Amino acid sequence: MDVTNRIERALTEALSQADLAGCPPRLAAAMRSAVFPRGARVRPRLCHSVAAACGDDNPATEAAGAALELMHCASLVHDDLPCFDGADIRRGRPSVHKAFGEPLAVLTGDALIVLAFQTIARVNCAPDRLLKLTQVIGSAVGVPLGIVAGQAWECESEINLAHYHRSKTGALFVAATAAGAASAGADPEPWRMVGEKIGEAYQVADDLRDAAADEDEIGKPVGQDVAHDRPSAVREMGIDGAVYHLKSLVRGAVEAMPPCSNGNELRSLIMSEATRLVPAKLAQSAA
Amino acid sequence: MDVTNRIERALTEALSQADLAGCPPRLAAAMRSAVFPRGARVRPRLCHSVAAACGDDNPATEAAGAALELMHCASLVHDDLPCFDGADIRRGRPSVHKAFGEPLAVLTGDALIVLAFQTIARVNCAPDRLLKLTQVIGSAVGVPLGIVAGQAWECESEINLAHYHRSKTGALFVAATAAGAASAGADPEPWRMVGEKIGEAYQVADDLRDAAADEDEIGKPVGQDVAHDRPSAVREMGIDGAVYHLKSLVRGAVEAMPPCSNGNELRSLIMSEATRLVPAKLAQSAA
Repeated sequence: MDVTNRIERALTEALSQADLAGCPPRLAAAMRSAVFPRGARVRPRLCHSVAAACGDDNPATEAAGAALELMHCASLVHDDLPCFDGADIRRGRPSVHKAFGEPLAVLTGDALIVLAFQTIARVNCAPDRLLKLTQVIGSAVGVPLGIVAGQAWECESEINLAHYHRSKTGALFVAATAAGAASAGADPEPWRMVGEKIGEAYQVADDLRDAAADEDEIGKPVGQDVAHDRPSAVREMGIDGAVYHLKSLVRGAVEAMPPCSNGNELRSLIMSEATRLVPAKLAQSAA
Repeated sequence: MDVTNRIERALTEALSQADLAGCPPRLAAAMRSAVFPRGARVRPRLCHSVAAACGDDNPATEAAGAALELMHCASLVHDDLPCFDGADIRRGRPSVHKAFGEPLAVLTGDALIVLAFQTIARVNCAPDRLLKLTQVIGSAVGVPLGIVAGQAWECESEINLAHYHRSKTGALFVAATAAGAASAGADPEPWRMVGEKIGEAYQVADDLRDAAADEDEIGKPVGQDVAHDRPSAVREMGIDGAVYHLKSLVRGAVEAMPPCSNGNELRSLIMSEATRLVPAKLAQSAA
């Protein structure tokens, strides 16, 4: 079974908890709408590729990949709330709070966070490996440096930009590479730097898409960074500067890979992501 | 060290994650304000008492107790949000959204949920025992039957009252007894019924306090069940009926205890809680 199918199967299996007797049906529907239809699944794909590079892509990898994606979806649902971005559209469809109301959007995020941890704890695999995964993913989401902490920098009067980016976007990419290694029984530490570079590249690409893509192309409103006066690589270094920075980050990610038994697939994933993420109208200058 | 101090120490230690470099300071402050000063700590005390009854009250118990309380505090922060109860006061002080704003209240709940899982994963203890605790506490919070699912019943057009109460209040009490047993290396299953009875008793006591206590006595607004047209034991069976029901639930909890090496402390905790929770003006009829 290819990676795409394994990722979707793991997510479908995780979400089946919400189909069990006793679950409020609208909560179950809201959770499904937050996770399906599929997005790019960037983080689980990265996790699977690192596990494969480390030579042992097993059921713990599938659980880790699903947990990463559930955490990502949870953060999107909460970030879309009226008290944050107030986004009505996500992946080209109504956002969860728009379709199901604010209370269910809050609870959907909560339930997805919990489901991520449940998904890992349920795997039939060496318990110490699962605990390591719990730690890796927990620290990528919580305090002091996870995505929740990253989002919370938007509520401070003085924002620490380095911490903000590293936590809000970077943390889950670092977790994706570290979890891929941990699920394969390898040491996650040397893989963190790879995730860090990819996460930063992804943030720059996101800023580029916000500044230079069409709403149709990315399935959500554009121009949000300027509208909300948010820091952005494009505002800081211009379009060309941001494209150049993105390319050097991608190179850095590949160079940071520790020795591993089977790194080719991962290398090409990193390179192809870099191209995919750049807005169509800039693709030529980024190529 | 007595149980009260052990519970507070475990929570203080857990929250110290938010003091580490890089954590947004207002998020850290909001998290502390959600957890301290201490409430009654009913769930961790129950967890410690069951562990002691099972004859092995160790560091895993402290982590489980802290995790239960962090989950409870997270649910209070989210339940107090304007899109749910819109409560401005909690434990006699401004609620988190009132003191820190809505965005930080959402993130505080998220961070506390994650912290609960991190706290368990960090204990130096047999990994399989910690995984069991993760499962017990995860299912008490998530779908299909945890407290988040319980709260979500308020968003359905037709409410399933049995599931609503069992999930919203009962689930974390069931987890408290099951986690106490699991942290002691005992079989958690027979302890679930004890937690179920106590949880139901607690719900009835809460309904009684909402109907018959003063705001000063319980540190939050009263009369909310009628104001929000919520189901309640008092609305269903009257004050006297609810007091009678409470007493029989407490008896049932004690009778449901499986054989254990040291059950006296737990028995007296259950009995004293039953008295403590009844509003002062009804205490005589409940005695």
